[in-house]
Amino acid sequence: MIPFDRERFERAARKRGIDVVLATSRHNVAYLTGGYYNMFFARDQRFGAGQYLSAVAVPAARIEGAFYIGRDSERDFLAAFGPLWITDVQSAPRRPNMTVEVAAKAAELLRARGLGAGTIAVELPFLPADAFAVLRGELPGATFVDATPALADVRAVKAPGELERLELAHRRVADAIHATFAAGRPDDTLRDLAAAVERGVEERGAEYLYALTNVGPGLTRAATAERWGRGRPLHIDAGAEVDGYRADVARMGSIGAAPARALEMFEACVRAQAGIRGRVGPGVACRDLSRIGTDAMAAGPFGRFGKFQAHGIGLVSHEVPAVTPESDTVLEPGMVVSVETDYLDPEIGHIKLEDSVVVSGAGCEGLGDVHRGWSTVAGA
Amino acid sequence: MIPFDRERFERAARKRGIDVVLATSRHNVAYLTGGYYNMFFARDQRFGAGQYLSAVAVPAARIEGAFYIGRDSERDFLAAFGPLWITDVQSAPRRPNMTVEVAAKAAELLRARGLGAGTIAVELPFLPADAFAVLRGELPGATFVDATPALADVRAVKAPGELERLELAHRRVADAIHATFAAGRPDDTLRDLAAAVERGVEERGAEYLYALTNVGPGLTRAATAERWGRGRPLHIDAGAEVDGYRADVARMGSIGAAPARALEMFEACVRAQAGIRGRVGPGVACRDLSRIGTDAMAAGPFGRFGKFQAHGIGLVSHEVPAVTPESDTVLEPGMVVSVETDYLDPEIGHIKLEDSVVVSGAGCEGLGDVHRGWSTVAGA
Repeated sequence: MIPFDRERFERAARKRGIDVVLATSRHNVAYLTGGYYNMFFARDQRFGAGQYLSAVAVPAARIEGAFYIGRDSERDFLAAFGPLWITDVQSAPRRPNMTVEVAAKAAELLRARGLGAGTIAVELPFLPADAFAVLRGELPGATFVDATPALADVRAVKAPGELERLELAHRRVADAIHATFAAGRPDDTLRDLAAAVERGVEERGAEYLYALTNVGPGLTRAATAERWGRGRPLHIDAGAEVDGYRADVARMGSIGAAPARALEMFEACVRAQAGIRGRVGPGVACRDLSRIGTDAMAAGPFGRFGKFQAHGIGLVSHEVPAVTPESDTVLEPGMVVSVETDYLDPEIGHIKLEDSVVVSGAGCEGLGDVHRGWSTVAGA
Repeated sequence: MIPFDRERFERAARKRGIDVVLATSRHNVAYLTGGYYNMFFARDQRFGAGQYLSAVAVPAARIEGAFYIGRDSERDFLAAFGPLWITDVQSAPRRPNMTVEVAAKAAELLRARGLGAGTIAVELPFLPADAFAVLRGELPGATFVDATPALADVRAVKAPGELERLELAHRRVADAIHATFAAGRPDDTLRDLAAAVERGVEERGAEYLYALTNVGPGLTRAATAERWGRGRPLHIDAGAEVDGYRADVARMGSIGAAPARALEMFEACVRAQAGIRGRVGPGVACRDLSRIGTDAMAAGPFGRFGKFQAHGIGLVSHEVPAVTPESDTVLEPGMVVSVETDYLDPEIGHIKLEDSVVVSGAGCEGLGDVHRGWSTVAGA
């Protein structure tokens, strides 16, 4: 069964005049195969003198003509994954350089399908330069365009299985941040706290990506040797993946009471979040949502410190829908938006609340809405 | 202070007629900066419609003319890292696409240094196609060659700080595998065991990369739903990083007694390892080492199941030195070789021992030689 929305794919390709999509990035290979990626290279593709590269080609007019190119040595992983919907599974040698070998194999298979002189969409910001040179050399009649926007459009509406993974990822990150606050000590450095989030995320079965930390006053968000101390607002803004689906969550905490102004700013974040969420739903133009959010964070006594940002999230951070004044996107059920509400007051710190919501049939629902309040902990 | 071996760099560049190296991959950016990489993108560079890209350029004839290009938003991370040896630190905008913006900025800075018409070494198997197109368009007089082999040559000899990280990574992986054996139960699936290695590695402060598992009989190495059971040889071949430096370690274990033939094969692996290590040292030609290892694994009663492989390891798996019949490399002190000794007998399973050694002044030393014996555990 085709694991993505066939009509959405065909529409995205047609709109751009694409005859075939040739995806080579980890994210889009996994997306188009329905979740398969060579596990040996999932965390790092570099190997020997080059890098592991796999490819999925999906012809727009005849999706069933898709093919996959990997390596002989991944047969066991493919078997463990179960049958792919793609029936033509090929392999390319890794020597002298797998990027070049995969491109040569792809060119051969595209030609055999009569697509060698068509409009071929490749991931230009990801495709290795040497692989692209081979494609262009082997397919001199082809027109190459960027596949990145088309595939982003297809990925924008999430299937139930994708939403489950996103919810799990968000919950695990929120739990890991909460546990880090709870176990925190005044002597802990920001580096210690970031490391604790990393361990906490992995213990919970997610794959750590990053943890940004700020302890106020000041606005630095690096993992330094600065200590949390008592009464200081700490923000942790962390990311992790579950089966490749990303969470992006920010929470606040302090050991003992934080300054009243920090808590008031946080309450303003909470209210702004609620207000913005109240406006998210199907049919809403992202450019309107951008204005609504920006206005919400510019209002009130802390408005001059306010900052609003919202972005799609899934296999990719800041994917479609873009929530900007220029965005042409209209929200649809199944789209996911990460809503960031920040106050950046150098005298207090970086006060922030961030969660993601999924657009539902009527409005929206939070994904892993846990531990959203300010965590005041004992620190001993 | 220049964090890499200046002479080695100059020699690698001169040998290939390179005027300037322009590195853009995570591994080589971190190597050339002396360990800095934007932490927000260290685990996944993809972002929005493109990817995060940073660049380090090092002119061969005047290393002090080096420059770094990143993003404005990484200023805090750069400050937390401390001063780079590279004094010219620039940033490129992320819109419309950071890959293209970094390339345009790099072209401008190379031109300003009089290197715009020189031989520019870029990482062809890594550089995004769109970034390369910009470089070629902006620098029509330049000759572009692959930087990958030159940088691999420079990285091949490790500094003491690199060896410490490699040792730590190897030790942590060996410890995590050992702990997984110790806590294993007959009902554990290969998937459970791979997940336990992942958690174990992360708990110990390393970054998990992969865990290959085989339970004999049979030769499959995928994380399936197959159970460990009693008396079955289990091999775990796992990788992880410490500060980007990789370990690659394989260990054997069973719940209760394994078949005598499996244990005999393992003893043969242990003997072969000792024999091969006895031949590793400065001045040894890698092609000779390849023959020595292949002969060792082809000898004795299990020879027809034997397989030998050895490869360099550092920031990259299977980096220089290549230990193959075709290799021209001669071992030098500070080079690291991962030695793989395998017997693949379908009726028994995949018996394997793998560790890395560093070439010393006289011979070689193991990196994290712990828990090398067969682990027989109670499983309850």
